[in-house]
Amino acid sequence: MSIFEQGLSRSEVNHIPLSPLSFIERSAAVHPNRPAVIHGSIRRTWAETYTRCRRLASALAGRGIGKGDTVAVMLPNIPQMLEAHFGVPMIGAVLNTLNVRLDAEAIAFMLQHGEAKVLIADREYQEVIHAAIGMLDHPPLLIDVDDPEYGEGLPISDLEYEALLAEGDPAFAWQWPDDEWQAISLNYTSGTTGNPKGVVYHHRGAYLNALGNQMVWAMGNHPVYLWTLPMFHCNGWCYPWTVTALAGAHVFLRRVDPQKILTLIHEHRVTHLCGAPIVLNALVNMPDSAKAAIDHPVHAMVAGAAPPAKVIGAVEEMGIKVTHVYGLTEVYGPVTVCAWHEEWDELPLDERARIKARQGVRYPTLEGVMVADPQTLEPVPRDGDTIGEIFMRGNTVMKGYLKNPSATAEAFEGGWFHTGDLAVWHPDGYVEIKDRLKDIVISGGENISTIEVEGVLYRHHGVLEAAVVARPDEKWGETPCAFVTLKAGHERTSEAEIIAFCREHLAGFKIPRRVVFSELPKTSTGKIQKYVLRDRARAL
Amino acid sequence: MSIFEQGLSRSEVNHIPLSPLSFIERSAAVHPNRPAVIHGSIRRTWAETYTRCRRLASALAGRGIGKGDTVAVMLPNIPQMLEAHFGVPMIGAVLNTLNVRLDAEAIAFMLQHGEAKVLIADREYQEVIHAAIGMLDHPPLLIDVDDPEYGEGLPISDLEYEALLAEGDPAFAWQWPDDEWQAISLNYTSGTTGNPKGVVYHHRGAYLNALGNQMVWAMGNHPVYLWTLPMFHCNGWCYPWTVTALAGAHVFLRRVDPQKILTLIHEHRVTHLCGAPIVLNALVNMPDSAKAAIDHPVHAMVAGAAPPAKVIGAVEEMGIKVTHVYGLTEVYGPVTVCAWHEEWDELPLDERARIKARQGVRYPTLEGVMVADPQTLEPVPRDGDTIGEIFMRGNTVMKGYLKNPSATAEAFEGGWFHTGDLAVWHPDGYVEIKDRLKDIVISGGENISTIEVEGVLYRHHGVLEAAVVARPDEKWGETPCAFVTLKAGHERTSEAEIIAFCREHLAGFKIPRRVVFSELPKTSTGKIQKYVLRDRARAL
Ligand SMILES: Nc1ncnc2c1ncn2[C@@H]1O[C@H](COP(=O)(O)OP(=O)(O)OP(=O)(O)O)[C@@H](O)[C@H]1O
Ligand SMILES: Nc1ncnc2c1ncn2[C@@H]1O[C@H](COP(=O)(O)OP(=O)(O)OP(=O)(O)O)[C@@H](O)[C@H]1O
Ligand SMILES: [Mg+2]
Ligand SMILES: [Mg+2]
Repeated sequence: MSIFEQGLSRSEVNHIPLSPLSFIERSAAVHPNRPAVIHGSIRRTWAETYTRCRRLASALAGRGIGKGDTVAVMLPNIPQMLEAHFGVPMIGAVLNTLNVRLDAEAIAFMLQHGEAKVLIADREYQEVIHAAIGMLDHPPLLIDVDDPEYGEGLPISDLEYEALLAEGDPAFAWQWPDDEWQAISLNYTSGTTGNPKGVVYHHRGAYLNALGNQMVWAMGNHPVYLWTLPMFHCNGWCYPWTVTALAGAHVFLRRVDPQKILTLIHEHRVTHLCGAPIVLNALVNMPDSAKAAIDHPVHAMVAGAAPPAKVIGAVEEMGIKVTHVYGLTEVYGPVTVCAWHEEWDELPLDERARIKARQGVRYPTLEGVMVADPQTLEPVPRDGDTIGEIFMRGNTVMKGYLKNPSATAEAFEGGWFHTGDLAVWHPDGYVEIKDRLKDIVISGGENISTIEVEGVLYRHHGVLEAAVVARPDEKWGETPCAFVTLKAGHERTSEAEIIAFCREHLAGFKIPRRVVFSELPKTSTGKIQKYVLRDRARAL
Repeated sequence: MSIFEQGLSRSEVNHIPLSPLSFIERSAAVHPNRPAVIHGSIRRTWAETYTRCRRLASALAGRGIGKGDTVAVMLPNIPQMLEAHFGVPMIGAVLNTLNVRLDAEAIAFMLQHGEAKVLIADREYQEVIHAAIGMLDHPPLLIDVDDPEYGEGLPISDLEYEALLAEGDPAFAWQWPDDEWQAISLNYTSGTTGNPKGVVYHHRGAYLNALGNQMVWAMGNHPVYLWTLPMFHCNGWCYPWTVTALAGAHVFLRRVDPQKILTLIHEHRVTHLCGAPIVLNALVNMPDSAKAAIDHPVHAMVAGAAPPAKVIGAVEEMGIKVTHVYGLTEVYGPVTVCAWHEEWDELPLDERARIKARQGVRYPTLEGVMVADPQTLEPVPRDGDTIGEIFMRGNTVMKGYLKNPSATAEAFEGGWFHTGDLAVWHPDGYVEIKDRLKDIVISGGENISTIEVEGVLYRHHGVLEAAVVARPDEKWGETPCAFVTLKAGHERTSEAEIIAFCREHLAGFKIPRRVVFSELPKTSTGKIQKYVLRDRARAL
């Protein structure tokens, strides 16, 4: 045994489980009077917020909740959601954030599958919640959240959140997790490809990805962070923990509304926000007078779907600096970033946006990313052309899927996490997603990246949103079929016109054979549900 | 067993030892062409630097060095020192950075105690090295470093560093550590209080403190970092790893020279540097014409000894923003920071400097700090007045002292690391060091903080440096005795004048009874060796 292993073992002095709980204790101690929470007319400091988290933890403990128990929440982006991110793990319990747009059946499934002992819910979802609860044999304890920003609503139960907090000890001595591998949260995937899976996070990964976020984004101290991203999605990409670690201010937003976003940015001098491309696109399509609200440096992190270069360009023209990241529920949110090179600043806007549309390179807190053959796991050449699947490994990969060892084993086969995303690897090591494994169109033996075709559609001045899917074809196997929503004032754009436009910018076999004008079905995280569109295309 | 523990165990996909080695791989991959190394006329990119590290690792492996072996280096701040911080741990070996100012006997002791298999040394230390090697039964393999910035010098051995690199494979597939608890480096303490101890660091702690540094200092991407701090000191406070993680540029400096520092800051647009108060003080005492070189934002992190408020104020007036941190070899360098509150910016310079002279609060990456009774470990009241010892616990506390289980046990007694530093705890939670446990003066039963008395001495316009120690006294037990160096042009300042000045600013029992004008003995990290002064005071 080496001399460095003798008498130098771990002890309580030098080995403490990594946990994001450490962050709130510190911010409350160091910056007790700084703003932590801004929501409607509510203003709370870090000291107050920490106290509320401790009360929540204490009250839940008082009701018999403890280590390994699931506490589900069905909440929009409101302060209680932030409190749950600390109060629940403070007693070793696991936070399950439910997607607020789901229907009763899906909610009932998750509550049952996750074995929730408690459900904290906003009145807005009263009906869905009651319907879901009606389907359960062992309903959880229901906590009613009455948010003044919602207005009049029917109580979820007779135990109101503030009354629950009142049961708790404001100086509650919460317990550090015994082990950093201990679960901190349970997140169901978006269900873009069909059936959501229950992804389990641990304290170690949450701590690390929180630090990774602030590092790649060079956030500095005390960001003013606007909650445009749903907090139920991958625990808000770990930003409840990141912003808290930096003693920033959380500015809440119950519902995405472009005008409201611009107003809040202006009013609170918001410095940072995250969102899917669709959210940024909504800002871009606001009138110039409204956009003038952005008169100070604002940074947007975008992910969740491939942002069309056109959208990136338009957002940057508004004065918002875009950082493009990529991730999945399975990896705590974003874990790659299109790390910027100063020399790219010299390029024309179009070119810059095209470079920025790439998903990039690993976060410093994720140990490995590669593009490789989905079967053999052999890395593809870095030629910007050969398509492979993106694989990841590292400390911010999930514990696994809850109660689903076979899905976990499949996802981890060969010692790498299989993302299901298809990409090329550029000579500079940057990854660029071309499609999902399940979405790619194979026509006459040739791969067609639906993302590429969508990128062209977005460049048409009449197109507001676009999605391309495979349509079965006798001769070619599959052909691309486009679904398009038009901008106000362009309702008369025709299928032929769109196809002609595509012909100017795409190789023949990539041109959509059909263009359907319609609303696009979306998940509550703003992603287009292509499996729904595939059914429609098939039925055309 | 909870559902969150079933079938969700660690695997190679989701659990990888935390290691700073991850940082250089990433920076070389993502920013291959950015400047990594600036030294005299040498310029190297991140790709080149990474290749050199891999060559070093491969060459050492080729010579039979491997996991758990000690590789010692006796190097000033030159690129080879950076390379050793990655190349050595790449093969699981442990880096022992020797203090370049030590004498042959001390070096021989460390080489023997640390069981070094290899010693990489700069020609400047040829004589000392040969003398030290002569004292050893099993001399290590000697590698000769011939730095062009040193000039002509006698070779240390006939194996030159560049020749060693040439033996190595530039694409060497280095191994990740098996365990993040594995040792990465061995650092002997400064020996300020007498006998240096061998502090062992692990990969986990090095990774975390590297992240902690960039976070508390809000460093952003691509800092230009000037090596004013000795890299052999606590592995340069983990900055070899921090700056690399941020793909910054390391600007090297063989020897601290205030004029050279100002020139380099100007020439390379240096953004960040670290150092002991004494280094900053040297800058302050440069002529105004030289100081005019600082015409862009520069950030200095200061620690190692209590910076007199006067010095902080003067540095900030030069246009350098000071961040005051505190730490010890035992905790990877800095682990507390005087986290700044914006509202303090409004205060007059003096007041600001006084606030900033406090050692502050824990890094987000250190889990606990307290001021408590040295015996009972009972926290002292946060009254800014009661003196206690600083205790720490967390993931950036050392593995322990090498081959010294009793010293380790003593340092960790009661579940906290005993720093040996005495401090008060302010109502706002900030810690302020008053003295070392071994340095405090106890006069007539009253504690006298030597740091407080020194702070007053520094305010006298003729004083360049000052140190106060205890002198045995029949009546009072001890009385304070001051050692002072005078500024050029103030050589005629008298003992009586200094004592009169102290009388204006200190309670009677705190006034030094004797003031001795002399040079101050220092460790090579720039700290005053008070144990030497105590002997002198006793002999007066
Ligand atoms: N920057 C991005 N560019 C392109 N696609 C992205 C980007 N960020 C995320 N995505 C897509 O989102 C997916 C991750 O989304 P999420 O985990 O929310 O659920 P989902 O994969 O949509 O749902 P399910 O796994 O249930 O089908 C990625 O696999 C990828 O396809
Ligand atoms: N910001 C600071 N303010 C006051 N003192 C400081 C500060 N930073 C470091 N120190 C002092 O430096 C000490 C740590 O120094 P280091 O580990 O280099 O060796 P040392 O303690 O001087 O040597 P030895 O332990 O061998 O006596 C701390 O214990 C503290 O006394
Ligand atoms: Mg998915
Ligand atoms: Mg010490």
